[in-house]
Amino acid sequence: MRLWVSFLLLIFLGIGFLLSQPRIETWRIIDLTHTLSPGIPVWPGNPPFELKNLARHDQGYYANAFSCAEHTGTHIDAPVHFISQQRYASDIPALNLVGEARVIDIRRAVSKNPDYALTSRDVLDHEARFGTIPPRSFVIARTGWEERWSRPKDYVNQDEGGVMHFPGFSPDAIALLLTRGINGVGIDTLSIDPGPSKDFAAHKVLLKAGKIAIENLTNLRELPPRGASLIVGALKIREGSGAPARVFALIRQ
Amino acid sequence: MRLWVSFLLLIFLGIGFLLSQPRIETWRIIDLTHTLSPGIPVWPGNPPFELKNLARHDQGYYANAFSCAEHTGTHIDAPVHFISQQRYASDIPALNLVGEARVIDIRRAVSKNPDYALTSRDVLDHEARFGTIPPRSFVIARTGWEERWSRPKDYVNQDEGGVMHFPGFSPDAIALLLTRGINGVGIDTLSIDPGPSKDFAAHKVLLKAGKIAIENLTNLRELPPRGASLIVGALKIREGSGAPARVFALIRQ
Repeated sequence: MRLWVSFLLLIFLGIGFLLSQPRIETWRIIDLTHTLSPGIPVWPGNPPFELKNLARHDQGYYANAFSCAEHTGTHIDAPVHFISQQRYASDIPALNLVGEARVIDIRRAVSKNPDYALTSRDVLDHEARFGTIPPRSFVIARTGWEERWSRPKDYVNQDEGGVMHFPGFSPDAIALLLTRGINGVGIDTLSIDPGPSKDFAAHKVLLKAGKIAIENLTNLRELPPRGASLIVGALKIREGSGAPARVFALIRQ
Repeated sequence: MRLWVSFLLLIFLGIGFLLSQPRIETWRIIDLTHTLSPGIPVWPGNPPFELKNLARHDQGYYANAFSCAEHTGTHIDAPVHFISQQRYASDIPALNLVGEARVIDIRRAVSKNPDYALTSRDVLDHEARFGTIPPRSFVIARTGWEERWSRPKDYVNQDEGGVMHFPGFSPDAIALLLTRGINGVGIDTLSIDPGPSKDFAAHKVLLKAGKIAIENLTNLRELPPRGASLIVGALKIREGSGAPARVFALIRQ
């Protein structure tokens, strides 16, 4: 082969490398995290998020302390939340907090039934369009519920009997997703089980397998159905049943 | 050009793309975060990290609430921490929380002087070896101090007069780094100002420019001097002067 051909091949190898944008500093970042502040929706009975001032600028610097339930704002459920002997928040390996985001849009079904639970059928329909869900993914239900976040009563959505109404996952769908080797599932509501659930069946199937749930996500409209990389920055709380998290999606542009 | 040459060029373009491992799910992840638990070192006078149980497995599920200062464990200082009119924790754009990690090892100087402040000379020496620090980087001082984390008294290291002793950055070094367009600086001690500092000059120079500090980092031995991508998962606290964070470094393997 002539020398110039070898030379060209090397150049094109390099161009291919650069085209792939290996430096994530150049990628698009989507913040899927709600802001933490007093008055945000919380699980009924949970303490509210509270900020307490410790020092102000005229004392030299400004600082606060804060308190909240582990399951406040955008947060994860650690496997131990429902399953004793399972992992605490601090014991979830970093590898289990990074993976491809797959987004399943169930807004149409939710508009007809606020208690809708994402089905195995929804998962299979997603895979028919976007390919098999890869290992270590996070499968996210986009329900549209995040639009209610700024109206806490509508977000928690309790009826006169105190029963909550919002969408979630069915335990069947979770069982199917586990066969794909997912890292976990996510949702833009208070819980991965639908509001009226009393047995928390979706949680139990998921957490028993050592996987995690991400709840109260936001900005899901900005996520493509596949291809974004999710990074779940959950606080590393020893003996935590879960933890507030900063969740970013990174997209190669 | 012959057809087979064009064909080969395309193949090599593709190989270059694949060699770059554009999917971060395949990258190595280093967790630079200390575990949050009661008894960890805190700034003198700050409240301790506390966990309060809300429910146990025999009640159906396990959950806790927690409380701490914003500047607890591995955390960020928001620009407003020392500078009024500057950004709160919740107002830091996601783009400012992702960037290349540059690590400057000052362990030798620290072994001779625990109050050592990383100098402009240390920055220039680093650049001579590893290239100019790129925009949006996080420049991290590796002081070796993290080895003391499990012995809180040695980590905070107050003398009989109550003055703390641990290494930090000099304001001159910060001023030089600002000319490089950094996102912020990080360190494996309680503060980016050396322990005895009373004027917090490094903080003020950095935060006035709207940049952030990351304090109480760990596992710095696993970070290369250049090339890792840092993702700072700081809690998005409204009116926060800072926030606990989960900090990951991703390395293309």
